Amino acid sequence: DPKLKIFALNSNKPLAEKIASTVGVELGKLSVDRFSDGEIRINIEESIRGDNVYVIQSTSAPVNDNLMELLIMIDALRRASANTINVVIPYYGYARQDRKARSREPITAKLVANMLEKAGASRIIALDLHAAQIQGFFDIPLDHMMGAPLLADYFINHGIAEDAVVVSPDHGGVTRARALAEFLKAPIAIIDKRRPCANVAEIMNIIGNVEGKKCILIDDMIDTAGTISLGSQALMDEGATEVYASCTHPVLSGPAIERLEKAPIKQLVVTDSINLPDEKRIDKLVQISVGPLIGAAIKRINENKPVSPLFNNRFH
Amino acid sequence: DPKLKIFALNSNKPLAEKIASTVGVELGKLSVDRFSDGEIRINIEESIRGDNVYVIQSTSAPVNDNLMELLIMIDALRRASANTINVVIPYYGYARQDRKARSREPITAKLVANMLEKAGASRIIALDLHAAQIQGFFDIPLDHMMGAPLLADYFINHGIAEDAVVVSPDHGGVTRARALAEFLKAPIAIIDKRRPCANVAEIMNIIGNVEGKKCILIDDMIDTAGTISLGSQALMDEGATEVYASCTHPVLSGPAIERLEKAPIKQLVVTDSINLPDEKRIDKLVQISVGPLIGAAIKRINENKPVSPLFNNRFH
Ligand SMILES: Nc1ncnc2c1ncn2[C@@H]1O[C@H](COP(=O)(O)O)[C@@H](O)[C@H]1O
Ligand SMILES: Nc1ncnc2c1ncn2[C@@H]1O[C@H](COP(=O)(O)O)[C@@H](O)[C@H]1O
Repeated sequence: DPKLKIFALNSNKPLAEKIASTVGVELGKLSVDRFSDGEIRINIEESIRGDNVYVIQSTSAPVNDNLMELLIMIDALRRASANTINVVIPYYGYARQDRKARSREPITAKLVANMLEKAGASRIIALDLHAAQIQGFFDIPLDHMMGAPLLADYFINHGIAEDAVVVSPDHGGVTRARALAEFLKAPIAIIDKRRPCANVAEIMNIIGNVEGKKCILIDDMIDTAGTISLGSQALMDEGATEVYASCTHPVLSGPAIERLEKAPIKQLVVTDSINLPDEKRIDKLVQISVGPLIGAAIKRINENKPVSPLFNNRFH
Repeated sequence: DPKLKIFALNSNKPLAEKIASTVGVELGKLSVDRFSDGEIRINIEESIRGDNVYVIQSTSAPVNDNLMELLIMIDALRRASANTINVVIPYYGYARQDRKARSREPITAKLVANMLEKAGASRIIALDLHAAQIQGFFDIPLDHMMGAPLLADYFINHGIAEDAVVVSPDHGGVTRARALAEFLKAPIAIIDKRRPCANVAEIMNIIGNVEGKKCILIDDMIDTAGTISLGSQALMDEGATEVYASCTHPVLSGPAIERLEKAPIKQLVVTDSINLPDEKRIDKLVQISVGPLIGAAIKRINENKPVSPLFNNRFH
């Protein structure tokens, strides 16, 4: 029988540990470091011949290094005769470059998909892809997990869901807000951002009733936190009692931390799809692990059982 | 008729300028920068529809960033309907990972070849690949240039070739030393490095006569410069009058510069396949441009003429 083996690359070892402990295995022996000139050196330190291998790597910053680590690891596993190479990508970098918004733009999210397949991945396990269409960039099986049930659990268990409104920070995110609202049995509202003419500040118009309510702003990722911080202020101005900001992927680049500290946001509720350095673990941050979820998914996949029951019948 | 266009990515713009001026065109308009989270943003700022495009990029350090820039650029060019995408890689990173030297190693040089083809390259133009076999990693045409004629020109024009011996720093490089010696009409010698037993310093035994001669140590690349600096000392100990070190690719990582400064090396003669920062441009460094050579090759390729005449009939 093929053995189940889990290997952690460098982007998110704490999450990989949690996944492995949920599955009930030790992480595989592996060294990933650099030659003197910065080239990646990978050494798989145990036989994986005939095994079902799961590799855990988020392609978060430094995205190019993390992506190349992953591709080189897949190459090494394929050449070492792994039975299947299952690539767990809790955060899929370059996902926003998923279409040509202007002439002569690349579609890097598709390029990355092609690279992963060409390197030899047999399956992808992803979490809240920026666009669900990225699933179609792959010709190999892809299991798409969602973070919303875990975030919903948190809001329910901490009494925040009562009398709450789930708010989408922009038009594009309404479906996502609807999904979380479903779990919370809450109404939704939308921030309708418009710039009436050039060189004029954006107007934040709120569609839906937030007065006297707790607001939960939800997005798939928070990057520079511009929209979320302006949005939280607009919600308070409209009479919200408290604002929570929530997302699956805490990218938190550039001015994000400074903006989030200043904004009238009570808590920032995110997952550990991206491993955060200490300086980004601010007081208002709550990080919920997707380790048990991904671990449970791996167990089911390895037993050829459907993954969807992990999400069904969860909130009744 | 398709137009010939040349674009420079970020690794080696000075070389790209020289190539473009040899060809007699301006560099294409392009912006390559970073989003806030470090993801690469590429914007091709002129139409290339139906054109024959040449992209200049060395995959030197930071190798993963430079490689991803190149792959994303190829993706953007393909989607923008370039007629041909000709990828000029003066220095091919990850070339030393060209075989499984141990169990469960990746073959990253082949992975990179696959990625370039999958992204959409129609042709590769490379210079002194670490192993000529890397040509076979590609199924698209590859033109393989060599730096030796240019290095030879330098040694001949500066009176160094007279009474010189070309020295290979190890067994693996004898063919390369032979090629340079041919151009210089000089004999060869070999440094035969052996470690008689573990925990004992290496013995540098010199095969061939170097006493009273100028020695030219030649390699394809100088990375940490360990072999070259020990070798130069061994040659002086054997009675060489002067030692020159020469290579196509000045990788110069880690302790390289310190070692080269201390070693009894009169000049370090290299090409500009890798763009060097100021702190690596030490006094004994002589950098010879491959711009005119690559420019001439591009002109010939674009006229469907063979590239080899650039190397033949050169030293008579
Ligand atoms: N890493 C990134 N940071 C910020 N914007 C990006 C990034 N990658 C792509 N984009 C841009 O984001 C837009 C797509 O975002 P969205 O509309 O949220 O799907 C496109 O216009 C991209 O050019
Ligand atoms: N960037 C690098 N720096 C140093 N050694 C490397 C690098 N990449 C690969 N290698 C090792 O170099 C050896 C091949 O070098 P060579 O024998 O000169 O072809 C292999 O054992 C590789 O593991």
